[in-house]
Amino acid sequence: MTTHMPGSARPVVLATDFGTGPYAGIMKCVIAGITPAPIVDLTHQISPQDIAEGFLFLRGAMPYLPQDCVLAAVVDPGVGTARRAICVVTHRFLAVGPDNGLLSFIPPERRLNVFEITSPKYTLPDPSPVFHGRDIFAPAAAHLANGLVPGELGPKLDGMTELGWVAPQPAPDGVKGVVLAVDRFGNLLTNIEAAGLPANATVTVDSTRLGPIRRTYADVDEDAALALTGSSGFLEIAVRNGSAAKKLRAGKGATVFVRNPR
Amino acid sequence: MTTHMPGSARPVVLATDFGTGPYAGIMKCVIAGITPAPIVDLTHQISPQDIAEGFLFLRGAMPYLPQDCVLAAVVDPGVGTARRAICVVTHRFLAVGPDNGLLSFIPPERRLNVFEITSPKYTLPDPSPVFHGRDIFAPAAAHLANGLVPGELGPKLDGMTELGWVAPQPAPDGVKGVVLAVDRFGNLLTNIEAAGLPANATVTVDSTRLGPIRRTYADVDEDAALALTGSSGFLEIAVRNGSAAKKLRAGKGATVFVRNPR
Amino acid sequence: MTTHMPGSARPVVLATDFGTGPYAGIMKCVIAGITPAPIVDLTHQISPQDIAEGFLFLRGAMPYLPQDCVLAAVVDPGVGTARRAICVVTHRFLAVGPDNGLLSFIPPERRLNVFEITSPKYTLPDPSPVFHGRDIFAPAAAHLANGLVPGELGPKLDGMTELGWVAPQPAPDGVKGVVLAVDRFGNLLTNIEAAGLPANATVTVDSTRLGPIRRTYADVDEDAALALTGSSGFLEIAVRNGSAAKKLRAGKGATVFVRNPR
Repeated sequence: MTTHMPGSARPVVLATDFGTGPYAGIMKCVIAGITPAPIVDLTHQISPQDIAEGFLFLRGAMPYLPQDCVLAAVVDPGVGTARRAICVVTHRFLAVGPDNGLLSFIPPERRLNVFEITSPKYTLPDPSPVFHGRDIFAPAAAHLANGLVPGELGPKLDGMTELGWVAPQPAPDGVKGVVLAVDRFGNLLTNIEAAGLPANATVTVDSTRLGPIRRTYADVDEDAALALTGSSGFLEIAVRNGSAAKKLRAGKGATVFVRNPR
Repeated sequence: MTTHMPGSARPVVLATDFGTGPYAGIMKCVIAGITPAPIVDLTHQISPQDIAEGFLFLRGAMPYLPQDCVLAAVVDPGVGTARRAICVVTHRFLAVGPDNGLLSFIPPERRLNVFEITSPKYTLPDPSPVFHGRDIFAPAAAHLANGLVPGELGPKLDGMTELGWVAPQPAPDGVKGVVLAVDRFGNLLTNIEAAGLPANATVTVDSTRLGPIRRTYADVDEDAALALTGSSGFLEIAVRNGSAAKKLRAGKGATVFVRNPR
Repeated sequence: MTTHMPGSARPVVLATDFGTGPYAGIMKCVIAGITPAPIVDLTHQISPQDIAEGFLFLRGAMPYLPQDCVLAAVVDPGVGTARRAICVVTHRFLAVGPDNGLLSFIPPERRLNVFEITSPKYTLPDPSPVFHGRDIFAPAAAHLANGLVPGELGPKLDGMTELGWVAPQPAPDGVKGVVLAVDRFGNLLTNIEAAGLPANATVTVDSTRLGPIRRTYADVDEDAALALTGSSGFLEIAVRNGSAAKKLRAGKGATVFVRNPR
């Protein structure tokens, strides 16, 4: 991907569970008051307080984050407690967020450094114990976009909280996974990496058999259900020109079984 | 409208059926990684896979697109099939999207050129067969915003897929149309151009008579239904300070009849 | 808050009840056609035509508006009537919107000047009587972002419409307020300023007693309800890692009573 970066400030990318109401908007106001950096809304529709869903979305988005951006990711059920605020440094981007496992979507080998955010110079005065997105993460991200060296935010840490990936379970004749999220089209997003699966494997969702893994929606008839490789590389269950969630009456937590060909 | 354009890069305007979740956000990340151009979300709330609704919204928005912008419009039920990816050139703006009728909102006389997007230089490597918004349309739009000449994207085409406008049907005593969309306020948006209608025409929605066409909401009492010229120039059915969809129990597909005065 | 302003143009901040569909998007297209200023979506999710809710959200956001921004705020049930379009000048920002009480979230002592917007030079030609957001407020805001002197928009006014704050009612043993809005997390936002409340006051929502005012969500057990100081300084009712709206079956208009300790 050719990369032409804007003048001086790094883009700030936002991913939160704040919805499209004013909370995310206030974060953007704080950022725009500190930096002229472009602000990119990755998503504010992570399910409220669902760290695992945020992890999944961010892992899928990671390869597409703009070079040198600053990601502010906030899904923060523990706001106001002793949980730390952190900044993770990678070769391609910086990320700030609560230390609750959300930022562990960045694989350990990609993390160059982790810093705690403690310096009051780069947060708003008297942070509210209920809205660190506005008072800590937005201003920290904006100062980083302006070129602040991450180590200025606070002390270097030896580790950070790991969410751990909800791994699929191997079985004698295949692998068993789970639906982690449902998108706007009713597609079911699973935790099973599609790359490793054998050709001609058959996929079952709850008790519905779907047949082999397809390349794209149009490989089946209208309104037929299928399994295919989703846009993030994970197995996805869809219905051509329809909603798999509705047709299969399946949602978050549904069991997905991939059976090896005999 | 006075026009002051930003420095070098053309604004990129997005219109999709991706909703406000991460799919649209990932498109924006890809664009921000290629160009410093401002990104404008026109809408991501086109009903899933509803090409006709996208056509309607884009036709209404067309006069307001910023001079010299690049529109990336994606409603793409045929993603991954043989349907082409195209770029339409007009005097005022460029548009990229799937060749499924969506971009035919641009009237034929406004189209200077149509190119197929085939060059791998301006798309992401190995495009996924399920997400051309991210892998083809976002990077193509970003490169155009940076000044790429449209003809570099691929071969010139002789034509493109036409959706055709869902035209109202003339009747002996008036004209019969249909509700194409319902907006957030519960207003019913029809396919009947208001400009040609006679004064004192009476409007009926399904079996409810609404009286003559009004100028604005406040021309009737609170909670009364009315017909008026909507903001895109088409006949619209509304309820003052209320929802026409709720009050008239009418939605997409409802019949609207405009009877000429006797 | 450190402030680094982008080059020449002031950021334009948008707050409307248009939702995330194309209406807000068309406003942004109009703005992007006039000015290279950054555009910040504060919110488009104010409840349709709910001026009081808009007032509440804007009062909460006011301290965080970027220095020198232009706010375009549109909740406009009276569009197309004789209600005026106005511009309010403060030391920190400019605001344009309908003169229906929405902009009275700016306290009178902060208003340096109020101008009516009448000059056709800074609006679109032939404004639609149903969409002043697009035809009047967006272009006026964009021209102000480009440096237009507010007095050029039209005549200076002596006053503007006041919404009046829905004040809590003092009672012999405390204060009685009301829930003004419910956020995405199910938190109930009240009209009671938390700063003046005595320590150990007890809070009741409808008939549910919640105990004393807490500092943050984690001060109670999982799924327990609590009262605390919300992020805008007003009393808020929440459930730790849950929804107060669901658990207490309470919403907009619910009565909140704060009883002084004896």
